[in-house]
Amino acid sequence: MKQLTRRSFNGLATKGLLGSAFIANMPLANAFTTNKNSKKLGVALVGLGSYSTYQLAPSLLDTEHCYLAGIVTGTKEKESVWQEKYNIPKENIYNYENFDTIGDNDSIDVIYVVLPNSMHAEFCIRAAKAGKHVICEKPMAVSVAECDAIINACNEHKVKLSVGYRMQSDPYTHEVKKYVREKTFGDVLFVSSDAGYVSKGNPDQWRLNKKLSGGGALMNMGVYAIQTSIYGTGQNPISVSAQEFSTRPDYFMDTDETITAQFKFENGAVAHMMTSHNANGNRLKCHCSKGWFELDPAHSYGPISGRTSNGDVLKFPHKRQQALQMDDFAKHILLDSKNLAPGEMGKRDMIIVEAIYKSIREGGQEQLLSLGDLGIVV
Amino acid sequence: MKQLTRRSFNGLATKGLLGSAFIANMPLANAFTTNKNSKKLGVALVGLGSYSTYQLAPSLLDTEHCYLAGIVTGTKEKESVWQEKYNIPKENIYNYENFDTIGDNDSIDVIYVVLPNSMHAEFCIRAAKAGKHVICEKPMAVSVAECDAIINACNEHKVKLSVGYRMQSDPYTHEVKKYVREKTFGDVLFVSSDAGYVSKGNPDQWRLNKKLSGGGALMNMGVYAIQTSIYGTGQNPISVSAQEFSTRPDYFMDTDETITAQFKFENGAVAHMMTSHNANGNRLKCHCSKGWFELDPAHSYGPISGRTSNGDVLKFPHKRQQALQMDDFAKHILLDSKNLAPGEMGKRDMIIVEAIYKSIREGGQEQLLSLGDLGIVV
Repeated sequence: MKQLTRRSFNGLATKGLLGSAFIANMPLANAFTTNKNSKKLGVALVGLGSYSTYQLAPSLLDTEHCYLAGIVTGTKEKESVWQEKYNIPKENIYNYENFDTIGDNDSIDVIYVVLPNSMHAEFCIRAAKAGKHVICEKPMAVSVAECDAIINACNEHKVKLSVGYRMQSDPYTHEVKKYVREKTFGDVLFVSSDAGYVSKGNPDQWRLNKKLSGGGALMNMGVYAIQTSIYGTGQNPISVSAQEFSTRPDYFMDTDETITAQFKFENGAVAHMMTSHNANGNRLKCHCSKGWFELDPAHSYGPISGRTSNGDVLKFPHKRQQALQMDDFAKHILLDSKNLAPGEMGKRDMIIVEAIYKSIREGGQEQLLSLGDLGIVV
Repeated sequence: MKQLTRRSFNGLATKGLLGSAFIANMPLANAFTTNKNSKKLGVALVGLGSYSTYQLAPSLLDTEHCYLAGIVTGTKEKESVWQEKYNIPKENIYNYENFDTIGDNDSIDVIYVVLPNSMHAEFCIRAAKAGKHVICEKPMAVSVAECDAIINACNEHKVKLSVGYRMQSDPYTHEVKKYVREKTFGDVLFVSSDAGYVSKGNPDQWRLNKKLSGGGALMNMGVYAIQTSIYGTGQNPISVSAQEFSTRPDYFMDTDETITAQFKFENGAVAHMMTSHNANGNRLKCHCSKGWFELDPAHSYGPISGRTSNGDVLKFPHKRQQALQMDDFAKHILLDSKNLAPGEMGKRDMIIVEAIYKSIREGGQEQLLSLGDLGIVV
């Protein structure tokens, strides 16, 4: 019998050949060989922009079940800087041309695609084809069709897929979901959610270029407000209407600046959201039949701040959300724990994004009746 | 020369025959005769429902420049109860039939119409014809045409008119207006405003009867959210879009249950609001270029609670808003101070209400380009 290396273990776990009950009952540290690295999944970051640089790479130093094993970059100068800073072996450094050979590299278990939105689909599919598990930064892609292509590729190549929804791993989010699920404050009747900031930087940044971003505020911060509207009510919306506002068309030449949207839920709850690249807003407030709860800030890197109508102040130990997120995904891969942000969730949100843009174009309310078919509740 | 009685003094002040600079420089107490009552304007409440009973009448005990002088009620049994409780002379008690003879009663200076919305116009006009100053409870009426009729009647009969916008006299409102005016936190970019409560009472109440109320949540709490959207930005909106949501159609058979609306302002600021008879919400949050400020609760009888991005907690001594409001109107009448809630403000808000209902019916954005013509800014 072969020695149970990380790779073969992962393979077994991924294929479900190890009973998940058996795995779930084992202390995590014992589920691996004693080799230090073999306790952790190797993550390669694809795209070394500011999110990789200032959030993901530092977070990978805080993770328990994964570590920064490799990088994929189109910028030659970044290679040595990252190599030195994070002690990355030369053979784990790729560029966009030789990226597909990453399948031969046993040190890389997970590929995290952190490129501009329009490149997510291509690189997630290439990662899946290389046999690597995939984290796709949010928004999952620039269209529902691309989300489907990513999901299909990951299914075909039997790799796990998650979307970079850091908030899904945040303890404040878990608490909010618990309030909703357990009706701590009664039924949620109305949710207000804002997610925006004022963009003043380089007008040539990819976020302001529709070809690269697929859209503006909605594609960026808007996805958070969609998510909070959903886990704030504990349901998928059944319809949405939306409006677009423009103040600085000379800066936001190509992408949406401010969008408001209103959601209707099957039980009658209502949510409205605002997202903007021209105004701040960072909040979730849920009004229920017996009280309320609020996160403000609700979508920042933390610490999040929350309070309730009981006078309680929510207080959880702060840990980098991205570290929690990547650990949650590693546990999903290794121990078959729940995937907190599966591809279907990213697809659901992209269906909503497309409906919002359609509502703006056509001026009406868009029905969202098939979201339940995706099997994603919150 | 005749003795300067309250009535003749008021008449002079109303007609502007006393220089307002002269009056403004006099301590208020000295501006009247020494007779206790003659220092105060006599107010008659028309309609003795819960707002008169639990808010206005107790507030009139806290006012400095007016007092409860009379009542007008259609419910015979209430006469003796109020007469006794507030020591109201029998000759100052009217019913809806003999109401028009109130013009002969020198003890009544101001008539406060607190009837169901659809009766505001009739009774405000009858009050004006009787030569009495008028406070018209909000919403001013059930149509812009009715607002015009009230304004015209008050102009014709040379009486002062204000709308029962208690928040316009609240110190928290003044502080918010100051922040906006002085750009304490920079330019206001986005305003979120909610005003709603859960209605569970008698389904036969007049608020749920469109003939009497003119509309549901929007006519009731919605007017507050419209007002906060406006003084939160310091501007009148130039367009509005709106949506209606219904959860309990068997209870809200006749009137709107939940409405969301989005406002656009000339400088590019955006506001969105929610009003409901089926969900709580009581908030104004203004996101500015250099910070934010928030009132939550923002529209309740107080105390209001506020905070800012500087970490400041807004704290003003609590006084009944309705007492402040009636005193402000009394000072307007007596000393020609600014009318904080003139009829044109009520009309402006009714133009917006009608635009919101039209947007819901027709599904589009409604332009509001002529609001500036009313001369009302915030």
